[in-house]
Order: sequence, then C-alpha cells, then structure tokens
Amino acid sequence: MGLVLSRLEITLMSEDKSDLYNFFNAMSIAVIGASNTRGKVGFDVVNNLLACNYPGTIYPVNPKSKEIQGLRAYKSLPDIGKPIELVIIAVPSKYVIPVIDQMHDLGIKNVIIISAGFKEIGPEGAILERELGEKLLNYGIRAIGPNCLGLLDTNLPLNASFASKMPRKGNLAFISQSGALITGILDWAENEGIGFSSFISVGNKLNVDEVDLIEELGNDPNTKAILAYLESIDHGKKFIETCQRVVKKKPILVIKSGKSAAGARAASSHTGSMTGTNTSYDTAFKKAGVIRADTVEELFDSATAFSSQPLPKGPNLCIITNAGGPGIIATDEAEFQDLRLTTLDGVTINYLRERLPPAASTHNPVDILGTGNGDEYILTLEAVLKDENVDMVLVILTPQGMTEPMKTAKGIVKLHADYPTKPVAAVYMGGTDLLESTIYLKDNGIPCFEFPERGVRSLSGLWKYVKSSREISDKVAPRVFDDIDREAVEGIFESVRNKGRVTLLGSEAVSVARAYGINAPKTLTAFSVNEAKSLAQEIGYPLVMKITSPEITHKTDIGGVRVGIKDSEELVSAFKEMMTSARRHYPKAKVIGVDLQEMATPGYELIVGVSKDPQFGHMAIIGAGGIYTNIMKDVSFGLIPISEEEAKDMLSKTKIYQILQGARGQEAADISQIIETLERISSLVSDFPSILDLDINPFFATADGISAVDVKITIAMQEE
Amino acid sequence: MGLVLSRLEITLMSEDKSDLYNFFNAMSIAVIGASNTRGKVGFDVVNNLLACNYPGTIYPVNPKSKEIQGLRAYKSLPDIGKPIELVIIAVPSKYVIPVIDQMHDLGIKNVIIISAGFKEIGPEGAILERELGEKLLNYGIRAIGPNCLGLLDTNLPLNASFASKMPRKGNLAFISQSGALITGILDWAENEGIGFSSFISVGNKLNVDEVDLIEELGNDPNTKAILAYLESIDHGKKFIETCQRVVKKKPILVIKSGKSAAGARAASSHTGSMTGTNTSYDTAFKKAGVIRADTVEELFDSATAFSSQPLPKGPNLCIITNAGGPGIIATDEAEFQDLRLTTLDGVTINYLRERLPPAASTHNPVDILGTGNGDEYILTLEAVLKDENVDMVLVILTPQGMTEPMKTAKGIVKLHADYPTKPVAAVYMGGTDLLESTIYLKDNGIPCFEFPERGVRSLSGLWKYVKSSREISDKVAPRVFDDIDREAVEGIFESVRNKGRVTLLGSEAVSVARAYGINAPKTLTAFSVNEAKSLAQEIGYPLVMKITSPEITHKTDIGGVRVGIKDSEELVSAFKEMMTSARRHYPKAKVIGVDLQEMATPGYELIVGVSKDPQFGHMAIIGAGGIYTNIMKDVSFGLIPISEEEAKDMLSKTKIYQILQGARGQEAADISQIIETLERISSLVSDFPSILDLDINPFFATADGISAVDVKITIAMQEE
Repeated sequence: MGLVLSRLEITLMSEDKSDLYNFFNAMSIAVIGASNTRGKVGFDVVNNLLACNYPGTIYPVNPKSKEIQGLRAYKSLPDIGKPIELVIIAVPSKYVIPVIDQMHDLGIKNVIIISAGFKEIGPEGAILERELGEKLLNYGIRAIGPNCLGLLDTNLPLNASFASKMPRKGNLAFISQSGALITGILDWAENEGIGFSSFISVGNKLNVDEVDLIEELGNDPNTKAILAYLESIDHGKKFIETCQRVVKKKPILVIKSGKSAAGARAASSHTGSMTGTNTSYDTAFKKAGVIRADTVEELFDSATAFSSQPLPKGPNLCIITNAGGPGIIATDEAEFQDLRLTTLDGVTINYLRERLPPAASTHNPVDILGTGNGDEYILTLEAVLKDENVDMVLVILTPQGMTEPMKTAKGIVKLHADYPTKPVAAVYMGGTDLLESTIYLKDNGIPCFEFPERGVRSLSGLWKYVKSSREISDKVAPRVFDDIDREAVEGIFESVRNKGRVTLLGSEAVSVARAYGINAPKTLTAFSVNEAKSLAQEIGYPLVMKITSPEITHKTDIGGVRVGIKDSEELVSAFKEMMTSARRHYPKAKVIGVDLQEMATPGYELIVGVSKDPQFGHMAIIGAGGIYTNIMKDVSFGLIPISEEEAKDMLSKTKIYQILQGARGQEAADISQIIETLERISSLVSDFPSILDLDINPFFATADGISAVDVKITIAMQEE
Repeated sequence: MGLVLSRLEITLMSEDKSDLYNFFNAMSIAVIGASNTRGKVGFDVVNNLLACNYPGTIYPVNPKSKEIQGLRAYKSLPDIGKPIELVIIAVPSKYVIPVIDQMHDLGIKNVIIISAGFKEIGPEGAILERELGEKLLNYGIRAIGPNCLGLLDTNLPLNASFASKMPRKGNLAFISQSGALITGILDWAENEGIGFSSFISVGNKLNVDEVDLIEELGNDPNTKAILAYLESIDHGKKFIETCQRVVKKKPILVIKSGKSAAGARAASSHTGSMTGTNTSYDTAFKKAGVIRADTVEELFDSATAFSSQPLPKGPNLCIITNAGGPGIIATDEAEFQDLRLTTLDGVTINYLRERLPPAASTHNPVDILGTGNGDEYILTLEAVLKDENVDMVLVILTPQGMTEPMKTAKGIVKLHADYPTKPVAAVYMGGTDLLESTIYLKDNGIPCFEFPERGVRSLSGLWKYVKSSREISDKVAPRVFDDIDREAVEGIFESVRNKGRVTLLGSEAVSVARAYGINAPKTLTAFSVNEAKSLAQEIGYPLVMKITSPEITHKTDIGGVRVGIKDSEELVSAFKEMMTSARRHYPKAKVIGVDLQEMATPGYELIVGVSKDPQFGHMAIIGAGGIYTNIMKDVSFGLIPISEEEAKDMLSKTKIYQILQGARGQEAADISQIIETLERISSLVSDFPSILDLDINPFFATADGISAVDVKITIAMQEE
C-alpha cells in the first residue's frame, strides 16, 4: 500500500492483496456526483483528485455534464466502459444503493461513500443504512463511510476526500470517527510540520471499521504509528485481537472520547452508537496493548516522537538544561509519567565536571547554567548519549545571554545521527527568538516543544509503548484445567432454564463453582421448614442460613442471612423470622426457600466476579470485598480470557494485595489460590459465554486456601 | 503602583506607600556596575532601562567611566548627590554589602540585587548571604534577590532586569523563583499576545519574598491576576494568611514545582531550600484559596481567561460547535474539570430549532453542523448568552466548507461586549487557515485555543477561583470551647518534660485528650505487676492491657495489646508474657510498665491525628483507621486552625464517610461528635503549638459518640 506499482505488478500480486488495497492504491477512480459547481462536495472531490497529483485516471460521473473540471464526464458508471478500481459516491443518500448495484454488475469492489443521510439522521436513515449494509455484504464490496470525509494518502498520492488540504508526507496514519477533527488536524499539522502517510475518515463505519484499517495499516510499510480518534468500538473482541497482533509491529495510539458520563451522552447522540464505560475501555486498551491519549495534544506529542525517534531500551531519562526551574518542572513530569531520572555514570560526571563551570550541576538533571553556549550543550549531550545508564535525553534550552539556539540545534541533530539508538527530544522555551532553530529541529526529525512537560510526555509515550508491547508478548495462553466437570454445569444451566429461571439458586451456583474446582462451602436449598430440618442433618450444625429469592439482592439488610445456627430449634425460629421479615420488606418478592450452608473459616474478605460488557465481552473483577466494596472501590479489572500473568497483575493492582501478603504481623493469605480462582473463573466463563453475571462476595482467603462463601450467577436464556 | 504619578502626588501619598512601592514606581535609579561592555549584566541593565522608555532618571555608577551608554556616570553611589529611590546592583557578590552600607548612609530603602554568588554556590556564599540579610533587616532596606533576573513593570514602564524583552502591557503579574522561566515566558508570551503588568524574579528571596509581593500586587489596580512559579515557600503561615486576604480581590495561580520525589531533590539542589511534601502544599493551597496549576501551559490557559473575561456566576457551560467530535472532546474535559454541561432553556432550544437545519443538535453541546456559517454561529451564541441556564460559553470552530472564521470571530467579540457578564472562550481548530481570525480574537480579548481541552480548562479556571474564593469567605472562625482545662495540660507537659521525656505515656495522653473534652477510656499506668493488680480494681474488669514503652511503636505486632482481661489471674500472666515478648523482640527497649484501660465499645475504626509540617504548621488528618490506614490511604488533610466547616469538609472527603452515614443497613455513627473532635484537637494544638505529633488510632465512632481508644502524643522539649 502506498507504493506506486505498475498495473502488471498489481496483477501479479493480486493473490496477496487485501480487500482494502484499492482504497490506497487504485489507479482508476470514478466519482459519482462529480460537479462543476463550487461549494458542492462533488466539485471538491474532483478538484482535490486533480490538485493532489493523483497518478491514476479520474472518471467523473454526472448525467447532465459532458465535461467536469476539464475531464471527460460520463452519464453513469456503466457508461465508462473501462476497468475501475475505486468509486467515490457524493450524491444524496437515496441514490447510493443503485450505484452499489451497478458496481456489483461491473465487478468493482471498493467504494468510499461520502454521502450523508443515513443512521445519523434518524430511523428512516437507519433503515436505508441497514439495507445498504446488507447489499455490501452480499456483493462482497468493501465500503468506507457513509457520512464520511473520505481518505487521503500521501504516498500514491491520493486525496479522495472533500478536505482541500493535502498533509505533508510522513509516517503517521490517522483513523478518525470525526471528519471535522481531520480537517482541524490537517490545518494544524501543516503549521507544526507533522507528516502523515494517510488519513481515513470512517464515518458511520457501516462496512469498513477501525479494526479493518488497523489491520491494513499494520501491514503498511509507509506507516510507523497508527493514530485513531474513536467514539465507539463495535467489535470489541476483534479490536483487541487485531491490536494485539499489530502492536508487536507498531504502536497504536487512541483518543477514545466519551470518557465522562456527559461525553458519552454527547457521543451517543452524535453517532447513534452506545459508548461503553470508561473502565471497560481502559481495560480493553490495556489488554490490546493500545496507548490511550487523554487529549489531542498528548496524542500528537507522542506521535511526533514515534514518527522520528527510535524506541528506548529502558525508562532512564537524562535531562540537560541551562536553567534550574524548567529542569525541575521536567523532573516532576518525568516521575509522574513513570520515567526514571537516571543516575549518570561516574565517568560521565567526571568528564562533565572537568569541562563545565564549577557551579554547573553535573548530576541529572544536568544544569549547564545560563552561561551555557552551543559547545557546552553539545559536549554534554554527547557525554550523556555515550552513557550506558541513559536510555533517552531531553534537551531544554531557554534564551539567555550566551545561548546559541541554532548551533545547539545543529549539534542535537548531528549527535542524534551519530547515536541513532537513543531517542532525543528538545524543549526550546520561547517564541519568536527561537522560531528558526525550532523549525530546524522539527524539520530534521527532533521533536521540539515550548514547555518541558510536553517534551517529557513525548519521550514517555515511547517508553509506554515498549512496555506495553513487551507485556503483550509476555502474555501466555490461559491455563487449561483437567479437573473440571463441564457436563455438570451444562446440566445445571439446562435445568435452571427449563424451570424458566435465569438466576441460579445459591445451591446451584455453588455446584457450578465446585464443578470448576473453586472451593465453596457445601450448600443445599430447602423449600420448606421441614426440608430445612432434614437437610441441616446433611450439612451439620453450626450452619449458615440464607433466604433464597431472586428478588431479594441485599439479603443482610433485611436479616436474611444468619450465621452460626446451632440446632434445629434455632433453625426453625430463624426460618420463621426470615419469612416474616421478607414479607414485610418485600411483600411482592417470590421467596423460594432457604439455602443452608456449611460454616466457612473466615479470612480476608474479597470480591471476585465477572460481568458481560456489551463491547468487549466478559470482564472480571477482583478486590476488597464485604460492605466496603462499593465505597472503597479497591478493585481491578481484566478481560476474559485471563492468563496466570494477567491474574497476578490484576491482584497486584489492588491495595488489599499488600494486606493479603501479610501486613503488620497478620498472617498472609494463599495468593496462588486466589490467582488460580481467577483463572478457573476465566475457564468457566470461556466455556459458558451465556453467563451474564457471576459474583462471589464475600470470597474468603486464608493461609490455607480460599472459600467462595456467597456465589451468585445469572445466565442468558439461550446458550451461545 | 504602576500608575505614573507626579512627584508631588507621590510626596502627598507617601504616608500610605508600602515599602515595596519604589520597586515599581521609582523615578530615580542608580545602577551599580553599569557598563559599556556588551555581554556584561551591567550593560544590559542600563541598556534595558533606556530602551523601555523609563520616564525617570538613570544614574550609572562605575568608578572607571565618565559616561555609560551616553549617560553621565558616577564613581560611587554617594558621588551622585541627588535623591535616589531605587538601586540596582550588578557587581560581584563581595562588593554588595559595601553598597548596602552606602545606601543606609544615604537613606535609600529599595534595592534589586541581581548579583549571584550567594547561598546557591555553597557554604561560603551562604555565610555572605546571612550577613547581607542581617544588614538589610537592621537598615530597614527592602531588597529583591540576590541571584535574580530583576523586575519588569509595563505601567511605569520599567525594565530593571537583564531580560532584553519588555512584555506587552496587560494585567497579569508573574512572580518567579526561576529567572530563566521568565525569559522563556517573555519570549513565548510575545508570540501568544499575552500581556503583563509586571514580572518579578525573586532569586534567593533573602528579604522580599513571594508573600510580600502577593500582598503588594493584591493592592495593585493594574494587576487582575497574580501568577507565581515557586520552588519553596519559607513562611507557610504568612503565605496562607496573605493569600486568604488577597484572593478575595483577585485570583492567585501557582505552579509549585518539586511535586514528585525526584523533582523535590532537583529543587533542593537548585535553591538550597527544602521542598515540602506535595500533600502539605496541596492542603495549604486549598486553605489559602490558591489555584494550583499542574503545568506552565495550564497556568497560562487559565491566566488568559482571567485577564480578559468576567467571572462566571456558576459552573454551567454551554458548548457551541460545528463538528461533533471536538464537541464530545470538550464535553469530556468539562466533566473532568467539574464544570456542568447545562441544560438549555426550552425557549432557547425552540429558538434554535426554528433557525438551525433540522439535523443540527439544539441541545447542549449545540452542534450547528459542518454547514454552519457565521450567521448561524452568531445567532446561536446570542441565544445561549441570553439563556439564564448558561454561565459561560465555549465556541468551537473547525474549518469546513461553509465556515466563516473571521465573521464568526467578529460576532463573538461583539456579542461578548453586548453580554459582558458571561465569560466566553473560543477553540479555533486549525493552523494557517485560521491564523488571522485567531489573532483577531486574542487581540480583542477572547481567549482562543487550538484544541478543545485547553479552551475548557481556561473557563474552568475561572469557576475554580469563584468556588475557592467563596469557600474562603464562608469560612467561619474556629469554635472556642469553654469546657477545656488548659492548666491540666500545662501541668502534664511540664511533668513529662521534667522527667526528660517528650513522648507521653498512654495514661498522660488520655488525660490531655480528656482535658480538651475528647472522650477517651479511663487509662492508668502501672509500673509493676503488683501496681497493675491494684489499679485494675480502680478500672474494673474486663479491661485492656497495653505495654508502655516509647521505643515500641507497633505494640500489636509483638502481642503488646491484650483485650478483655477478665480477672487478676489473667492479668498477671498477660503482664509476664508481655514483658517476655518485649525483651525478645526489643532487647534494648526501655519498658516502663503497662497501661490499663477501660474496655471501649467497638465502633467504626478511624484515625485522627495531627503532625507538624515544617512549612505550614500543624496538619490534621482524619480517615479510615486500623491496620488498613497505611494501605487504603483513605484519609484527608486540613491545616490547623480548623473551623466546623473545614472539619466537615475534611470528613466528607474520605470514602469512609459514606460508611459512617450508615451504608448497607449498618447503623450510622454520630458524625457531629467526630467533627467536634477535630475542632477540639484544633483547639488543643492551637493552645499548645509544641505538640509535634498527636495520633488517635484507633478512634472509635458509634451512634452514641466517640472514643479515643489509643492516644499518642509527642511534644517538643520547649513550649513555644
């Protein structure tokens, strides 16, 4: 993609071409709705194709014109009578499907549908969009859009959009769910000197979505980093799997908007798609190895570093400055961004001490003082680049008496070429006086910023990527357990469904847990007081009694849980009290009976659970349990399937982990059993994706093992 | 200050002039070390005074020259023989004190000491600086510096610095502990079109510090907002008191560097001053009503809004955009910054619905669509400015087909003049194409940014200030209790000190708490097993026994706390076991005996305490107690003295507050008693500032009241 190949080469390669290939490489393009009237999208598209030096053939289609902007025009697509590799549609929505039909007849497989008037305008448009989607699928036609800005590629080059500006050629690809963001960024990037391989506006992403494009751009030799602005992700699992593969080759940086509740409302009114919660996105991005940027500025501060700099071997940063204050500001930000202010080697320190003025600080951050000139910057930079303790360097320059901004800039560029394995960024603090040298740095591939914080963030993005791609590679497959009883669970679910329920009784949930090797106290359900008396013999006193009713969720709040029942007399009175209390508090609730349970050895109280996220599938949770769960919110998340490494990582992110390891003279819990429980739950949910919610709270952990004291499971009416 | 007054007016006003007045208003300045040699600081200072159109008289002093840069030069300060209001010193450090002596002889009271070579160079310089400091104090001379860049004032105008660039005239004052940051910002601000009233580089702030300047600038009619970059605050209490007064008049925005541990190290090596911990700074800034900015960019994004916009009445933001994506990004940031996406009035919505295209979103954020032209922006902005539900407006513009950036900009400026009580900011997303209109907006007092997040932050800064200044005004004086026994505490402290101790025994600490009306279980100290037996009669069984030793801090870890001792037999055996365990674990610890204590009714376990911060005095803490304290870190902070409002605020910031109010069917604690305890501790510590640490952990709270179960107090050897 992006390479200009001869027709023959393309034919020869055609076996290997992806079905998105023509979007970036088409040598013949038909524009439906081409126009001679300025202000019309069909005018802009033809005009942009002509202006961008597109090397292929353009076929304007307009039933009323013989010539469009100097090109011969055609009445219709079939009229052209030549092979066409890409169609761009810029006519009202109702005319789109007939064009798709024509494309099918002619065997054309790629289309960019700029036309708006689909689901974004309401139910009527949504119906039209659904019809269009089905046609595309049936015909095997790949479509970008509808309701999009189009696509720009600097390598062919190709401007198949109504954005008038072609970006500078570079190695960043940008996928955007907002066309306006593209026009804004195109304009801004021109000023900043940032180069791109391509821009793709995905619009309503009816057919081609961000996942397809990430896959495609992952294989694009002209793209070094993939950037995306996303408002929704419709195929969460595919997104994660694809990103996991692609981030081994290149970084993916995403701004996912709708982080806040209000933002999510705005996003949903805008695109008609539900925005997932922020937590599930964060968890999914982590699993996918995607770097999430909080702001557009942060996205590009990282991207410019990826564009021109090598990846660092470690987090060890050295700061060189000619002013204390900015050095401290950078130090603060570095720590905040998880970089390490490295300790310079003694050799480096001595070398600098001999050459810099006595008042200079030869420790990191190296302060060459306000008197520092170009030579001093250069000798310092070279010394720290040579230092094995240094993985990356930030050079800060403020305009002072002896400062030589351009000489320093040239030195930075030269030294970066001499030591090409260590990333370097610059902070030139000041406007007009430093303009020329700042431009020189940017033009020569050194990211350069006005303030220290942004310089640090650009370098920290590189390190974040190295770390996250390592984590992805380290992840081993989830464990396979050979002691599970899948049939037992199948039987329980079937029986529950046959009774018209979706929520399992306590005794059923415990059986499910036990079938997957999760230790849970023996639990039996009694439907009457007499049955309770006889089942209690089987469990043995003292025992626990819990009211059984799908409608009563917080049982403890109404006295629906009694611990340490000693004999049948206490059992009978507790049974009666529970029923009375239930009738008083929940007069309409259906009470099935009571669960009788073995007493569990109390331990550290945790919560373990799974719930099904609409975007990304099953999300597991672990953390501090009991009544504090919802208040302390000391929990961490992970997406199923969960490997041992991931389970460890999840647990270690909670604060209670420190307590579980044995804090302040307390006995430590058996951590490996807790981790194994997460893995077993992962196995259970992977086998039974119809589980909607699984909640073990409390989940006791002691030095001897674990106990799933209260298990709740809800399933879908249908197995998947 | 800043106003150019006639000599007569100054004389008439002289009674009211502050002792910093001449720094900003001097009509005669002597420059010690004035020079004709380019590259020397003494050259730059005279050159800058000449170049800035300073309206007063300049007296260069240089023993070797008759003329400096066209001005008559003098051999020495006494040689001048005319009244001098301000001296600028730019000679090596060893010549500084003799000049100060001459100033004293001549009765000159203000000096800017640019010269370096003081405490920043090591012990030798520190000695010289101390001597200089004492002279200044004795002479009653006010000095800025040493080791500073100088001072710039755009109103006189006066450039008494070696920074060559004079800022654009404006209403922001900037105080900086880093001279280089000033030169960087001067240069950058020129490009951004940001105007200033003054810049002051405080250097080593030996005599005049940020507190003096905040006071002075608070009274300056030319300054609308005070900005500061601080690496240390030496007089914390004075800083808080001064800011509390000044923020009632104008906002104070601070970047405090050294936020991170590494940053603090860099800061301390740089200025030779210890940087306080981040928590104490955050707590102090909150109490002072100061807005803390995290980055330089954030500081100026807020500052530009303060510079030109009115203060909003509430947090209700309306966003107008011509593109969905940027609108969502702004919505996210608004929620993150605690602004409220307001619901527009029905009248506004109908008005917009009738005038905007059907696909436009007439709810907030208002999306006038990519087709939105200047007229549509203007009619929308006017409608929302009229809406009483709207306190402030952000206008986002992206360059699209029909966009009219300049017409829209002119509309914004005009409407802002028509509705001057509601702040407005703009986001013009794009570079070159929007340059002219962006400059127009900035020049006409509308803050304008490239990305949505920065626009939102600039408006949220205004609201943060309104909120924090209201909180300052709402704060009532701390409560005065009439049931306290101050003499009892005096007696206990005296007796403890007389015994050569600084750590109180458990029984003594309990007595101190009880003397200030804090409920604590009766506690007696026994120095032998026999004494324990007899004192146990006084307490009554069952009781609690705790080992008493200043060296054993975590008593529970070695079995040094026994609860529920039933009789004298158990008491004797517990006593022996404790002593054995103490000898085994702490062979060198001095064991005084045991504390015997009434059993307390267990309740919610909290921690309440106070510790003395070197910068800001006593800092109180409240939060979740017990062994979880250090792990969950669910605590909040406040500086003594603490009013009822502040105590409530502190408690409500903890997560455990929700539990205390009665979560999940649990009984609520008596919140008012907890708050009163904080106030009583505040009263105790205010009366006895020699208390270094006070720690109540656990502190039980029940529905019936509170109980200070374990009280630890450490005091200084001397009462203050």
